[in-house]
Amino acid sequence: MILRSSPASPFGRKVKIAAHILGLLDRVKIVNADTLNPEDDLRQQNPLGKIPTLILDSGKVIYDSRVIVEYFDQYVGGGRLIPAKGDDRFDVLVMQSLADGIMDAAILQIYEIRFRAEENREAKWVSHQAGKIDRALAALDAHPPHITPVPHIGTIAIACALGYLDLRFEGQWRNAHPRLVAWLDDFSARVPAYAATAPH
Amino acid sequence: MILRSSPASPFGRKVKIAAHILGLLDRVKIVNADTLNPEDDLRQQNPLGKIPTLILDSGKVIYDSRVIVEYFDQYVGGGRLIPAKGDDRFDVLVMQSLADGIMDAAILQIYEIRFRAEENREAKWVSHQAGKIDRALAALDAHPPHITPVPHIGTIAIACALGYLDLRFEGQWRNAHPRLVAWLDDFSARVPAYAATAPH
Repeated sequence: MILRSSPASPFGRKVKIAAHILGLLDRVKIVNADTLNPEDDLRQQNPLGKIPTLILDSGKVIYDSRVIVEYFDQYVGGGRLIPAKGDDRFDVLVMQSLADGIMDAAILQIYEIRFRAEENREAKWVSHQAGKIDRALAALDAHPPHITPVPHIGTIAIACALGYLDLRFEGQWRNAHPRLVAWLDDFSARVPAYAATAPH
Repeated sequence: MILRSSPASPFGRKVKIAAHILGLLDRVKIVNADTLNPEDDLRQQNPLGKIPTLILDSGKVIYDSRVIVEYFDQYVGGGRLIPAKGDDRFDVLVMQSLADGIMDAAILQIYEIRFRAEENREAKWVSHQAGKIDRALAALDAHPPHITPVPHIGTIAIACALGYLDLRFEGQWRNAHPRLVAWLDDFSARVPAYAATAPH
């Protein structure tokens, strides 16, 4: 399988950690993609031109990150990173949604800088996105999620979201969220794949 | 259950169509939300402040649209709108990802107008989003998906994405995609929930 991703993508990191934990690293060849380059064949593989995108040996293409993670989980029998059913499954999937929402809001703030001259940036838009992150972090800091022996995709996604805030916003989130800082330290100590997939 | 949504939201429409088809309409009370109003209690229910968000009778909260659809499907036994396993499941989930990507790109173009004065809008950003939609529509027009007797969430999501393009971009997509226009007519004729959930 070929995984189109990039070193900094938090959604790509989620998928890479899943592959690590599930023992699929030697089945997955990572080929970096440039989502802003029209010549990159990513746009032929996935019309949305988004990463991560997984190309199976059959040529079939799987995206986005949530679907790839579920595909990996099913590939090794299912129920490893995502509980197969019941309340646990929905708790984990909602946690992943929250983390994905943090990543989306953070990426939109970065695109604001990449796509626009400083005088054209819109403070109201940036603060709308920052508000999502602030509220999500407050909720997580109040109740840091339990880290299971095999970490589920909800906690993996939260760790990737926090790692992306570290990368792009110099870890400013750390000042006001001491319990979440301790939580990420704990996650990182227990899940070697987290450090192994850190962006350079 | 309470569903926070808005009449125009394509992600909300996807969830509403799911509730229609699965016979859950009388269990779900729809309460409109204003995602841009800080006083709306949506932000207490879902820190991301996004719709759709589902509040269960227990108080537990389920989001985003994909997770809500899966919750509804499980609520009635599972495997109705999303195949339970195998290749079919991933084909349907990837189709939903493609449709969700069209919706996201369309919404970002609308936010460009809502959040910014005309002179501050960034053509490069708008065309980056429009390109995602163009390529996705071309792929779908080349191979319109099969409509199953009970429509699966992949086709439901595509219909909602096209309906949102009709609503916000005056159906400009129709000119260059005749097979997809015929496909949506067919879908609409077979799935009464589509017309029943049309934005006013």
